[in-house]
Amino acid sequence: MPLIDLPLDELRVFRPDVAEPADFDAFWDTTISETRSQDLSPVFTPAETPVRFGTVLDVSFGGWAGDRIAAWLILPPGDDPVGCVVRYIGYGGGRGRPQHHLAFPAAGWATLVMDSRGQGSQSTTMSGVTGDPHGTDNPAVPGVMTRGITDPATYYYRRLFADAYRAVDVALRHPRVDNQRIVVAGNSQAGALAQAMGALHPYVAAALIDVPFLSHIRRGAEIAQAGPYLEIGAYLASHRLEEERTFDTLSYFDGVNFARRGAVPALYSVGLMDRVVPPSTVFAAYNRWVGEKRIEVWPWNGHEGGETTQWETQCAFLSDLLGRP
Amino acid sequence: MPLIDLPLDELRVFRPDVAEPADFDAFWDTTISETRSQDLSPVFTPAETPVRFGTVLDVSFGGWAGDRIAAWLILPPGDDPVGCVVRYIGYGGGRGRPQHHLAFPAAGWATLVMDSRGQGSQSTTMSGVTGDPHGTDNPAVPGVMTRGITDPATYYYRRLFADAYRAVDVALRHPRVDNQRIVVAGNSQAGALAQAMGALHPYVAAALIDVPFLSHIRRGAEIAQAGPYLEIGAYLASHRLEEERTFDTLSYFDGVNFARRGAVPALYSVGLMDRVVPPSTVFAAYNRWVGEKRIEVWPWNGHEGGETTQWETQCAFLSDLLGRP
Amino acid sequence: MPLIDLPLDELRVFRPDVAEPADFDAFWDTTISETRSQDLSPVFTPAETPVRFGTVLDVSFGGWAGDRIAAWLILPPGDDPVGCVVRYIGYGGGRGRPQHHLAFPAAGWATLVMDSRGQGSQSTTMSGVTGDPHGTDNPAVPGVMTRGITDPATYYYRRLFADAYRAVDVALRHPRVDNQRIVVAGNSQAGALAQAMGALHPYVAAALIDVPFLSHIRRGAEIAQAGPYLEIGAYLASHRLEEERTFDTLSYFDGVNFARRGAVPALYSVGLMDRVVPPSTVFAAYNRWVGEKRIEVWPWNGHEGGETTQWETQCAFLSDLLGRP
Amino acid sequence: MPLIDLPLDELRVFRPDVAEPADFDAFWDTTISETRSQDLSPVFTPAETPVRFGTVLDVSFGGWAGDRIAAWLILPPGDDPVGCVVRYIGYGGGRGRPQHHLAFPAAGWATLVMDSRGQGSQSTTMSGVTGDPHGTDNPAVPGVMTRGITDPATYYYRRLFADAYRAVDVALRHPRVDNQRIVVAGNSQAGALAQAMGALHPYVAAALIDVPFLSHIRRGAEIAQAGPYLEIGAYLASHRLEEERTFDTLSYFDGVNFARRGAVPALYSVGLMDRVVPPSTVFAAYNRWVGEKRIEVWPWNGHEGGETTQWETQCAFLSDLLGRP
Amino acid sequence: MPLIDLPLDELRVFRPDVAEPADFDAFWDTTISETRSQDLSPVFTPAETPVRFGTVLDVSFGGWAGDRIAAWLILPPGDDPVGCVVRYIGYGGGRGRPQHHLAFPAAGWATLVMDSRGQGSQSTTMSGVTGDPHGTDNPAVPGVMTRGITDPATYYYRRLFADAYRAVDVALRHPRVDNQRIVVAGNSQAGALAQAMGALHPYVAAALIDVPFLSHIRRGAEIAQAGPYLEIGAYLASHRLEEERTFDTLSYFDGVNFARRGAVPALYSVGLMDRVVPPSTVFAAYNRWVGEKRIEVWPWNGHEGGETTQWETQCAFLSDLLGRP
Amino acid sequence: MPLIDLPLDELRVFRPDVAEPADFDAFWDTTISETRSQDLSPVFTPAETPVRFGTVLDVSFGGWAGDRIAAWLILPPGDDPVGCVVRYIGYGGGRGRPQHHLAFPAAGWATLVMDSRGQGSQSTTMSGVTGDPHGTDNPAVPGVMTRGITDPATYYYRRLFADAYRAVDVALRHPRVDNQRIVVAGNSQAGALAQAMGALHPYVAAALIDVPFLSHIRRGAEIAQAGPYLEIGAYLASHRLEEERTFDTLSYFDGVNFARRGAVPALYSVGLMDRVVPPSTVFAAYNRWVGEKRIEVWPWNGHEGGETTQWETQCAFLSDLLGRP
Repeated sequence: MPLIDLPLDELRVFRPDVAEPADFDAFWDTTISETRSQDLSPVFTPAETPVRFGTVLDVSFGGWAGDRIAAWLILPPGDDPVGCVVRYIGYGGGRGRPQHHLAFPAAGWATLVMDSRGQGSQSTTMSGVTGDPHGTDNPAVPGVMTRGITDPATYYYRRLFADAYRAVDVALRHPRVDNQRIVVAGNSQAGALAQAMGALHPYVAAALIDVPFLSHIRRGAEIAQAGPYLEIGAYLASHRLEEERTFDTLSYFDGVNFARRGAVPALYSVGLMDRVVPPSTVFAAYNRWVGEKRIEVWPWNGHEGGETTQWETQCAFLSDLLGRP
Repeated sequence: MPLIDLPLDELRVFRPDVAEPADFDAFWDTTISETRSQDLSPVFTPAETPVRFGTVLDVSFGGWAGDRIAAWLILPPGDDPVGCVVRYIGYGGGRGRPQHHLAFPAAGWATLVMDSRGQGSQSTTMSGVTGDPHGTDNPAVPGVMTRGITDPATYYYRRLFADAYRAVDVALRHPRVDNQRIVVAGNSQAGALAQAMGALHPYVAAALIDVPFLSHIRRGAEIAQAGPYLEIGAYLASHRLEEERTFDTLSYFDGVNFARRGAVPALYSVGLMDRVVPPSTVFAAYNRWVGEKRIEVWPWNGHEGGETTQWETQCAFLSDLLGRP
Repeated sequence: MPLIDLPLDELRVFRPDVAEPADFDAFWDTTISETRSQDLSPVFTPAETPVRFGTVLDVSFGGWAGDRIAAWLILPPGDDPVGCVVRYIGYGGGRGRPQHHLAFPAAGWATLVMDSRGQGSQSTTMSGVTGDPHGTDNPAVPGVMTRGITDPATYYYRRLFADAYRAVDVALRHPRVDNQRIVVAGNSQAGALAQAMGALHPYVAAALIDVPFLSHIRRGAEIAQAGPYLEIGAYLASHRLEEERTFDTLSYFDGVNFARRGAVPALYSVGLMDRVVPPSTVFAAYNRWVGEKRIEVWPWNGHEGGETTQWETQCAFLSDLLGRP
Repeated sequence: MPLIDLPLDELRVFRPDVAEPADFDAFWDTTISETRSQDLSPVFTPAETPVRFGTVLDVSFGGWAGDRIAAWLILPPGDDPVGCVVRYIGYGGGRGRPQHHLAFPAAGWATLVMDSRGQGSQSTTMSGVTGDPHGTDNPAVPGVMTRGITDPATYYYRRLFADAYRAVDVALRHPRVDNQRIVVAGNSQAGALAQAMGALHPYVAAALIDVPFLSHIRRGAEIAQAGPYLEIGAYLASHRLEEERTFDTLSYFDGVNFARRGAVPALYSVGLMDRVVPPSTVFAAYNRWVGEKRIEVWPWNGHEGGETTQWETQCAFLSDLLGRP
Repeated sequence: MPLIDLPLDELRVFRPDVAEPADFDAFWDTTISETRSQDLSPVFTPAETPVRFGTVLDVSFGGWAGDRIAAWLILPPGDDPVGCVVRYIGYGGGRGRPQHHLAFPAAGWATLVMDSRGQGSQSTTMSGVTGDPHGTDNPAVPGVMTRGITDPATYYYRRLFADAYRAVDVALRHPRVDNQRIVVAGNSQAGALAQAMGALHPYVAAALIDVPFLSHIRRGAEIAQAGPYLEIGAYLASHRLEEERTFDTLSYFDGVNFARRGAVPALYSVGLMDRVVPPSTVFAAYNRWVGEKRIEVWPWNGHEGGETTQWETQCAFLSDLLGRP
Repeated sequence: MPLIDLPLDELRVFRPDVAEPADFDAFWDTTISETRSQDLSPVFTPAETPVRFGTVLDVSFGGWAGDRIAAWLILPPGDDPVGCVVRYIGYGGGRGRPQHHLAFPAAGWATLVMDSRGQGSQSTTMSGVTGDPHGTDNPAVPGVMTRGITDPATYYYRRLFADAYRAVDVALRHPRVDNQRIVVAGNSQAGALAQAMGALHPYVAAALIDVPFLSHIRRGAEIAQAGPYLEIGAYLASHRLEEERTFDTLSYFDGVNFARRGAVPALYSVGLMDRVVPPSTVFAAYNRWVGEKRIEVWPWNGHEGGETTQWETQCAFLSDLLGRP
């Protein structure tokens, strides 16, 4: 798997122009306030699971339009307030089962894992349970990348980002979670969500952003060799006259625009042989991130990035930043 | 591309047990009467197109739930009543543009081509314009194969079959269409629709069913090597405990069950090297078709089947059956 | 399918040196006069087809060396003189059946579709009937790309280009065709033929040149990732000492050299993700075209280019240029 | 991914002849006694890890020839004696990091995870640290499948099986482990190890054997479409005259022969679409297993088998069998 | 690479019906007498080559229609009469260079290596120099499999078989060749030629037939997964109505029909994992071979068969049969 | 297969910095003197082979650590002293059988062909017989690329390079070999060995270095698209923290460092479409070679390079340089 993008020294200074809609902030203010106007009504139920470590809660909450979204909340043993890592899930996956999410709790962090509406069926390990009860007003390529893409208001990711916002709100609602130590985290699609929440949600204290999807989306669609970026290209290959409208919608979800607003400390990672999320699209966002930041570069890895090594680095990063969980 | 299924002599007598729900007829009676209770309101607008042959109409009508569905109606020149071939579109495609549908009109038949809701984005030629404004209550594999699959009432194909039914109704509404000479036609997914309409719609006089998808669905999912059957397998590989419920839903849409009710003359075709719709699944339905029937076997073709040669055979078949259009 | 070639702004000014044989014009003068010295003897026979639109003629004419070449001529209804689009066929295909060629006639244009000698067997839809009754004096890679390549005089494409020239002559012979409104058209290999005829045949009034093959052939052979350019590389990988002679022959057929002589209005198209005919090879010719010209750039399409959308643009282009057919 | 092997009803009674060496028991008796004659010297060191759940020990012990083998031992919180699941690792992987192995401890079971000597470099998540300090006396195909295959005494898997035996001994040595509740577990290569240890080690109380590799090895090599079985075929394709000797060696390691000696309760699993370990090879062993047994059949899964669902079933199985851990 | 055909015990008795034309013998008698009526005019020229072993001659002779065919004749050192192995070349290759053919001469056998007309461009090692100066009267799939296939009289292989016959005649003409010890040999396409010459040419004393192509051709076209059999399927997928005529032509070239006439001793070989020439097609011919025969079965090899091991067996076979060369 | 690397004019001046260990010479001095301190004890046994040309000897000698290494020595007929080409074997192959190595002897050169320890199992033609009786102290990716890579002293290639050195010593020991005319030769891995021996062994008179592997190894690992370079990337993708140590070890084996010390005449070759050994890595070494040098550039070939044409060039090169063998 060879290198597929710019050399590392060019990546480190790659700051392409990425379109920002004039009403970007307004769009997200509206989206968030509409979402917050819905009932959050978090329900925390003890999960049916063989896991007997700490407390495992099967969570349900009202996301976009009040749709009920599933999640897990796993709390380490004890009664003390704890920091909480809100984790999102990569493309095609769902929240899986509690046993997949024990690492952060074992390191002392509560973790809330949000299911991805309408996904959760392409992974044999990370199956999901949450549907996406919203019709799309346009024909769409398989997957969710182009559902509702004719308008930012109806685009699938608006709903998912709104859910992601509310997932942080849910974490804040649990009595054991320390609201000064909320961290968002994820890789790929989940990295995109973490990056956006790091910019949008006032209670986020830090963001762990691994190989984030959805940054400099046009370039991603132009050069990615595999993965969901190809859905955008397929859609435009079929709908030849929709290019402008499509990228206009996508600009509301582009990570570069969130990075320009991201003020909290962020730990990124990137794989230089990533064919799914080309490294230049990661650096396009990283190089714009406003807050304190650091990026781990994995020169020999693809879309998996740093995985377990990255996780150990993240634990140290969080401890340095926020103190032991 | 080698042979991938049973030998031809076994195919010709292949009559496997395929589950039929006790309320199969009730389900479809309800579906049709609910659909028919919605406003059909066909709108026929002259199409914007360079095509100046006969009359090319951009059609819109109320399908399932009254959702507006796009179609083309192309009428050969003249004022006489004409027979009409109602055509559906294969998986991932849409109605395309009028110039794709000139063959039947040139042969003297009116043709009505129905767009497929929520598809129409995976083909660079056959793009669609119709969305599917209905949420799904379950996470789903990319594509439409598993949207709403947890219940026959919410399954995507219920909506598409209902649209297909109404497409025939629309054809009947046009003053030039001779209601004694309505033919349904299509290949693959569209063959599944034609097969079902041949069984369900009382005004259908004949069915042209090419390499029909969605017959003996379980076997299709077990042995297909490419194409949309794989979405079912992918869903069940992720949702391991959903097998029974999934196939229960699918049994309401299985072509074998429609074939058992198909009384009009039918011309089938099958490709013996078809990796997408394995030939045994076609014969499973064909061998059950009740009405007069014939099947063209293409021993060296895959999912493309007989294409142009089949079309010429179809023209002769229709002329023999219904007289010149 | 990522971008595979130069960025668009570089493509727009890409004017590489492409070798032009000193006797290029002499070679083609000789080729054409030799061909014209053979009997054209066009035979127009009513075709056996279900198509009852206008007049469908099964055509035969004398091409290179007087070999009989098949074609279709489809005339729109009526008696008025009509413009005629002479269409060629892409690599591996043949003239197919009349029903494949109804779009231009439906738009009011007669169309003459030439079979490709010795091809017509690799497409399940566009089958051909014309052989290539000329031996090759060199071993050759599968396909026709290297048949007779040791000398321009014996190269396969000399015969095919000569046929293409005579196809225009045939169109001129039909009493309904208006000899002021002859258009040549095609995509890929057929685009190469259209481009060459736009330069060579004095009666051509316009050229529709889609994703043309055989332009800047050396570069095509060096960077194409699929398709017939690979046959040239395979031949040279086997015949390691034949490079110079091979490209010398090919320079007589290079579209860049035809573009330098193309004075009629031309409408090109190109797909930026075309792995078969890399976009730089298209621009290498387009940027040299002498006459009035325009190019449609399809940034998200591969070798299929603009297809139906391009066709609608072509209809408008021709109407603007030549008046309604 | 279609079905690739016998139908399920034939699998359930599939009992092929698999060669058993006359000295099979003697070979393993010798192997074990030689191994046990080496110093076990388990060293339990607190691991450097962010994981703060229970006790995480970095383990080293003397395996075959006394070579030091790495492992993790993770003990759930508390001081009570606990059952211990000894887990092995699939082909190409290593012990990874402690955070990968928290599920069984979270369910109350200690877990000891053995590194695989000389592997641990093909997985980006499950990296290993243990070499295989033994030369091979024959040239070998990449991977370990054919290292030392000319003689059972020098075959790579003899060393790995011996390590696996000693891993159980190590578990027994830890003061918190209850020696009445030792379970062996693993999938694929690790399933082969679990299956063998279930037959060989007197202290094993139950075996969890998922999609086990190395059973009916000849058939595996004949029909597997991917994975390490192909290394055997590649070796024999190169060393054409070594077939007899090769399968003679392999018969000492064939899971069918261990199954004939497996008397403890066993929970198997199998994926009917498993191209790496064809289901018939699993049933060939399962159908011979002597002890109480059960098999979970995953009809839509490949080599991943039941994963998380299987794990939850395993927890219930162990609780039923051995009481809560 | 798994097994792809019948089990070995079924192969050993596989004797399917393969059509034999009534005029099979007449066809070949005519073909041979027509060929022999042409001038053979063998020309033996010392080759330009670094090879200084024995005598290396660049040969040219008149094949079908007197077309000049290239060959090498390599004679071992000395003046004694020697046996001669006439070797043919596999699909897509040519005679290569003298250094590729030293093994038989080094074992004491003269070897004559015939170039394959019109091939010799798909192998980077075995390049050829001989064209095929005969037009085809039908369009044809890339490669030579379908050139002239509409009639046995014009089929490409008629010319190649005729050349192969004359290659034996050329060997007989060289003064050092002992006409009692002519052997024909080859693998794949060349195995088909050797098999046919073993049946047709009266001076052939033995045949070495490795993984022979073109036996039970229909089955080959139905089940081969790669290689030139696929060209037949591709042709019929395009020319849907040509099946009967195509297989009628092919029956004149089917190795089963030659095997029924093969009376000289033959040593065959077959690879059980051969996806290009499925083993059942080899056994279909082998089981019909009339003369003394033996087959080497390579259970783990694909189309490469026994290669060097087979060659050593062949040397011993020839020594036993014909005495030291 | 498109071009994959820099344009030729840039390749010709490509002189990247490649790290050279300070103790590079010391490392190799030690390695050679340790190896030479072992018993060479060459054993020359007449080979069992049908080859009766010249003298074919089955050779065994003491390589690294005195391990017995197999080889062939083939001497042309006669008693005169002869030059000797010492040939090595490409990755995954072994010495094969004598009949594979007749070309140089037929051209008058003795040839000694060294088996590659522990390889020789991935080629169906070039099987080997020599094991690698040295354990590795690190887990390693399949293949030999990373065996012992944690230290240059234990790295697999140290042993293979030492064997290669001793292979030259063995050639010198045979009484017929003229020690003034020793040539080393090989392609790919074998080219790396030839390149190194050209620099290290004082008796080498010339080096034939074809598409040499292991030059500018870091770049090879970064851009190769197939072949053994990918093993390095796979190892580092798994062992993320080993990059520095790994490349430190590899720098002792990098062909660029040998080229800097290569003073004898060298004939290189390179394929511009080589995906396994990218051309820039070849030029990185070639451009540093100190001695007289020439490179044959094959613009249309991949990793096969010039093959037979290159061999003929080599024969002429050697004759010019050393006189007829």
